[in-house]
Amino acid sequence: MNVNEYFDGKVKSIGFETSGQRSSVGVMTPGEYRFDTAAPEKMTVVAGEMVVKLPGNIEWQTFSAGDSFDVPGTSAFDIKVSDSVAYLCDYL
Amino acid sequence: MNVNEYFDGKVKSIGFETSGQRSSVGVMTPGEYRFDTAAPEKMTVVAGEMVVKLPGNIEWQTFSAGDSFDVPGTSAFDIKVSDSVAYLCDYL
Repeated sequence: MNVNEYFDGKVKSIGFETSGQRSSVGVMTPGEYRFDTAAPEKMTVVAGEMVVKLPGNIEWQTFSAGDSFDVPGTSAFDIKVSDSVAYLCDYL
Repeated sequence: MNVNEYFDGKVKSIGFETSGQRSSVGVMTPGEYRFDTAAPEKMTVVAGEMVVKLPGNIEWQTFSAGDSFDVPGTSAFDIKVSDSVAYLCDYL
């Protein structure tokens, strides 16, 4: 279990592994972020909401608590956060 | 947003507030823990599972991803974790 900070500490996450699945839970405070992926990821919103532009998309989509979306590996996606949002990220 | 550690770093959490709701997301590594509550809490399992003995109960109950349970304020509850588990805690 390791704590990571990104974007000057505006995004923090805790990495863990359960049943052999590598994942992290984290919190993003308000801001606009571009994340690069190595492995493909499944993101699930745990609390709050985020606005996301997925790779190859021109439209922004809103995801709320309980919603999830997949991101291809070796890509990048954009997230806008207007109020803090908690997420689960599964590395696929 | 603040990172907290409990039980010699075996439990870590990130506190945040969204839409006026104070919450935290965290990870518990394998172990047995007794948590004291100040405010009442709603706990939701985000990934993995935990075995819980709620205040006043003699039986242990298993909660898996998606399950939640309420804990009264000014009480204590016990959690057993055999593989890492991620949780959301809402302070009610």
